[in-house]
Amino acid sequence: LSPGITWNTPTNSTGSIMADRADAWVDIPDGSPFPLHNLPFGIARREDGTIGAFVAIGDRALDLADAVGTGFLDNSPAEYGLLDAGGTLNGFAAAGRAAHAALRDRLTELFTERRHQAQLTPCLVPLDELTMQLPVAIGDYVDFYSSLHHATNLGRLFRPDGEALLPNWRHIPIGYHGRSGTIVADGADIARPRGLRLVDGEPRYGPTNALDIELEVGAVIGAPSKLGEPISTADAEQHLFGLCLVNDWSARDIQAFEYQPLGPFLGKSFATSMSPWIVTLDALESFRVEPPVQNPPVADHLCTTGATGFDLHLEVDLNGEVISRTSFSDMYWTPAQQVAHMTTNGANVRAGDLFASGTVSGPTAGSEGSLIELTWNGVRPIELPDGSTRAFLQDGDRVTITGWAGAEPGSRIGLGSVCGTIVDEGG
Amino acid sequence: LSPGITWNTPTNSTGSIMADRADAWVDIPDGSPFPLHNLPFGIARREDGTIGAFVAIGDRALDLADAVGTGFLDNSPAEYGLLDAGGTLNGFAAAGRAAHAALRDRLTELFTERRHQAQLTPCLVPLDELTMQLPVAIGDYVDFYSSLHHATNLGRLFRPDGEALLPNWRHIPIGYHGRSGTIVADGADIARPRGLRLVDGEPRYGPTNALDIELEVGAVIGAPSKLGEPISTADAEQHLFGLCLVNDWSARDIQAFEYQPLGPFLGKSFATSMSPWIVTLDALESFRVEPPVQNPPVADHLCTTGATGFDLHLEVDLNGEVISRTSFSDMYWTPAQQVAHMTTNGANVRAGDLFASGTVSGPTAGSEGSLIELTWNGVRPIELPDGSTRAFLQDGDRVTITGWAGAEPGSRIGLGSVCGTIVDEGG
Repeated sequence: LSPGITWNTPTNSTGSIMADRADAWVDIPDGSPFPLHNLPFGIARREDGTIGAFVAIGDRALDLADAVGTGFLDNSPAEYGLLDAGGTLNGFAAAGRAAHAALRDRLTELFTERRHQAQLTPCLVPLDELTMQLPVAIGDYVDFYSSLHHATNLGRLFRPDGEALLPNWRHIPIGYHGRSGTIVADGADIARPRGLRLVDGEPRYGPTNALDIELEVGAVIGAPSKLGEPISTADAEQHLFGLCLVNDWSARDIQAFEYQPLGPFLGKSFATSMSPWIVTLDALESFRVEPPVQNPPVADHLCTTGATGFDLHLEVDLNGEVISRTSFSDMYWTPAQQVAHMTTNGANVRAGDLFASGTVSGPTAGSEGSLIELTWNGVRPIELPDGSTRAFLQDGDRVTITGWAGAEPGSRIGLGSVCGTIVDEGG
Repeated sequence: LSPGITWNTPTNSTGSIMADRADAWVDIPDGSPFPLHNLPFGIARREDGTIGAFVAIGDRALDLADAVGTGFLDNSPAEYGLLDAGGTLNGFAAAGRAAHAALRDRLTELFTERRHQAQLTPCLVPLDELTMQLPVAIGDYVDFYSSLHHATNLGRLFRPDGEALLPNWRHIPIGYHGRSGTIVADGADIARPRGLRLVDGEPRYGPTNALDIELEVGAVIGAPSKLGEPISTADAEQHLFGLCLVNDWSARDIQAFEYQPLGPFLGKSFATSMSPWIVTLDALESFRVEPPVQNPPVADHLCTTGATGFDLHLEVDLNGEVISRTSFSDMYWTPAQQVAHMTTNGANVRAGDLFASGTVSGPTAGSEGSLIELTWNGVRPIELPDGSTRAFLQDGDRVTITGWAGAEPGSRIGLGSVCGTIVDEGG
């Protein structure tokens, strides 16, 4: 963006409180994840096959190309071709927090001033007429491991005779790079992967017998950084475009056989589902929480102060039955710390990079974010209403992850949802 | 590429033998890595600041945009804007082996028929007037671990009381995803990374004290594959654009602290250097070798037959002194097996994906591809001609990796070289 361009002055992004839905002329159904104060960004295919950038509100989405055509977004970031260049939000993400806030603020004005209703209503498309795409082209995908409860559970399962947590875990946010090329959009079928796994103690090739989910929150990088210039925890959130939901599908048997000593590879790289709407941190400002106290204290460059956590409620639905309810609020490592850590060594971040939180698990039964934890590696299968049980996923199973901030259905800021159905590997 | 387009018929890509340098009207200095039979592809910045695609021959490179202007490349892949779209070779890589062979064959004709000399000579630019760029935009970067000697050495160093090789190693090509966003071009300075590492048994933050190299061969994906459709070992090479050299810089102390249980992360992600010229498999056809016999036999889907290895000589130069000489010929897992394995689970590959072989180490002293092996984790420092010693790299050290096929200096097919200099982290 040219420094000479003046956008509409942000009027309500700082210290804003939840706008009353009555303020908007757009009809927002009760319990919608997308009230006036959310305004998440996404990329969708229209019914005519073209692809563009949209902002969700209620059960519709504003077509930003059409909105630019009204002239209402003159001198806003929407005007400069950033929003769907290459069919992605990467250009807009790279423009940084101020640009995102400016457009969000202008849209808030437009959706609250009734004199714009007649001209803008034709730009609103019902969500069910849109096919959501991946919102960004993902350069690097990093998956962290930042839930104390999840890391402890997996330590107990895989190293029953040792300490549940490895010595490094409380000192740095443990993570690894995943495969960005197999990140798929909401609704994509997930083919059961094949691979080598131990059968009766011998490595055998075939379809996984332990197909699992991982409930995660994804953070998408906005403003890029430069190689050799680490980002401080204080600056880290300036590099975030927003949050979404991630299902890091995992084949536990393939993973168990391959992961020593270089970490997860084919047990994860077959598919990762990402939700379509990027919710900005501005939209989540009222739902910040202080993260857990870190003990032992972490190194200075990883310290954060204040409310750098986010109080998000998360759920996993399997074939219509909620099998896990958990919270993002007590993640041991926050997004700000993850970004800072990831760049400690001088690595840069690029707009559209995705880093996932790691499986979000709580301390209580039913709050675990993976089947391997929920069923304790199959020892305690889940019973479904149809009388069947699950240790891991079967072909035909449909998993939907949903998340939102806010206790009251009428005042939620939703992340939306991400869904995938297991299909036979066809092999 | 449109299926209707007919390129010049390949005349000499199959079963071709080394063209005699006397056949070319282009002067090719003795010992040049780029004789007529090589013709590797790269992307370079010209002295006027513009960027384009080039083919190296001798100590010059053909500017393909200029060559298209002569009309000599009509109906060749060079004509269709694939060669430097976006300043990368990705489009050309994606066009597949037949397209690469067709262009290479046409260039071979042009460089041998003297009647073209007058018109093509102005398209040849001295290599020292070009600044080489990354040849491709890399989607996913995978680093394997496919040298038996390297894996055995590291097992002995890190698990002195256990089996040197873990049980999975002979069954699958072990690998992990690296950070594609920090892959840097030949000549880029390497800033000493900071991070948490154990000092007197306590995690402390600071610059790495164990900065290492990893001598590797990189394979670049050409024709992409589809999600859910594994590539067989028989088809794998049809998806390869060519080979290059990779230096997978590693901070051993940061790596040692972080790598359990999810593998290497910040100990590797600060920088990876990639050589600029992609050498096609057609150019290396005469240097194929049968890989070592695999015992125990691998699963059917990973079996290969015939000469799927490549006999490449590789060297590491530190400040003007060759400290390692090794061979790619006895890598336990071949590129074809790595591609097949990587897609076993349904993962697709994209043009420009880079997978590195893993450190290439031989069985004898002085044939190891990393300092941690050459110095046995610092126990046996290397002595340099200036009287200094090295356990790991010091600031100011300059490392150059070079590789070629062919025993005789006059008939080598060179991969060129990749160089990097360690600079103070400035932190």
